[in-house]
Amino acid sequence: MSGRSIAPRLARAVVIADGDVPARPALDAAWPGWSEGRGLVVAADGGALGATRLGLRPDLVVGDLDSLAPSEVERLRHEGIEVETWPAAKDASDAELALRAALARDPVAVTILGALGGSRFDHALANVWLLALPEAAGREVVLLDERTRVRLLTAPGRLDLSGRPGDLVTLLAFGGDADGVTTEGLAYPLRDEPLAAGPSRGLSNVRIDRRASVAVRAGRLLVIEIHEEGVLP
Amino acid sequence: MSGRSIAPRLARAVVIADGDVPARPALDAAWPGWSEGRGLVVAADGGALGATRLGLRPDLVVGDLDSLAPSEVERLRHEGIEVETWPAAKDASDAELALRAALARDPVAVTILGALGGSRFDHALANVWLLALPEAAGREVVLLDERTRVRLLTAPGRLDLSGRPGDLVTLLAFGGDADGVTTEGLAYPLRDEPLAAGPSRGLSNVRIDRRASVAVRAGRLLVIEIHEEGVLP
Repeated sequence: MSGRSIAPRLARAVVIADGDVPARPALDAAWPGWSEGRGLVVAADGGALGATRLGLRPDLVVGDLDSLAPSEVERLRHEGIEVETWPAAKDASDAELALRAALARDPVAVTILGALGGSRFDHALANVWLLALPEAAGREVVLLDERTRVRLLTAPGRLDLSGRPGDLVTLLAFGGDADGVTTEGLAYPLRDEPLAAGPSRGLSNVRIDRRASVAVRAGRLLVIEIHEEGVLP
Repeated sequence: MSGRSIAPRLARAVVIADGDVPARPALDAAWPGWSEGRGLVVAADGGALGATRLGLRPDLVVGDLDSLAPSEVERLRHEGIEVETWPAAKDASDAELALRAALARDPVAVTILGALGGSRFDHALANVWLLALPEAAGREVVLLDERTRVRLLTAPGRLDLSGRPGDLVTLLAFGGDADGVTTEGLAYPLRDEPLAAGPSRGLSNVRIDRRASVAVRAGRLLVIEIHEEGVLP
């Protein structure tokens, strides 16, 4: 037998983009266990500061570094944090580069923070497409803030939506029409139904059961869960 | 000759959704003339309160009215404002219903406010699809806040991007890949190039000329302009 050891597969990477980073207590309260099994933290440019606010030490900072002061970059390097510098005129956002760096380590799951809010609506829109990166397929990749969880469900597939009754669940066809959508545990059930890209029909469904799920037979669905504060667990 | 008069076509409708409504002075400063030719104001549910904050009187309020107190609805009716009530368990968002009501009056242009920000990221995503409503085709329909202008360009077509040098321009393929994208007046020019749906390549281009434009030969492009404060007009 060879003595070669097999590196254990990384359970969860956390990627911190440079948008609004949620407050840690609110995040922990809304999505218990969101960082479970964390083995890697990758920050996108100014996301390094967001990581600090969240009490997370980045293992790696990726980007063109236009949102970090040179003294800040120096401090990161001094603390032994790896910094991967890209030119400003590149063909991908810092968030995409950071996610790609995380996926290259082959994690089972990735949680992306700081990608939904902030002053750049174009970034938020582009960040949703990060869920559709080919390297993300087969992994549990999620965009998260203290109120919102966004995931992508690719057909044929089924996604567990278990959680607090009263929370909102929005289903949006992604990148084209979806078909054969079936839900369980939601107030407005869908039963093997089509969901066309565009109309707002799939907005604001409501989780009525602790156990809930959505399945899709063709196409892709963006599954957005909105945590309603004040709803008892 | 018949004495029948032909009603003049409505120039611009303003639709106010129930998300974050921008501050009027910032809106006026960022997008001069944004409400020019206004002939109709339609508010979606709680957007009626946003209209008031903007100094606009709604002609029509549309929605399930779950965001307005009954006394508020009474006040609107008392002021002679038409209120169109929908059931809560409907297949379209209040914003979509409000936009449809506006488009039914055949305006040349529609400006939609309150649709990009707020606590409901799912609504913001669905609101972008409002630009693709079939009834919106051939009209100038725009989502606006004090920093962001979102428009949809359908091939074959060309969109004028004139404005302040220094502002950011993001081009994202919408609902599928786009091809034959050509820009003028931007720092990172595209010359009859493809833009695939998904990657963040089209983010953060920069307007370098007062006159700028984008053209597309196949597909659709979401054109997002981000007004950079502090850049001189």
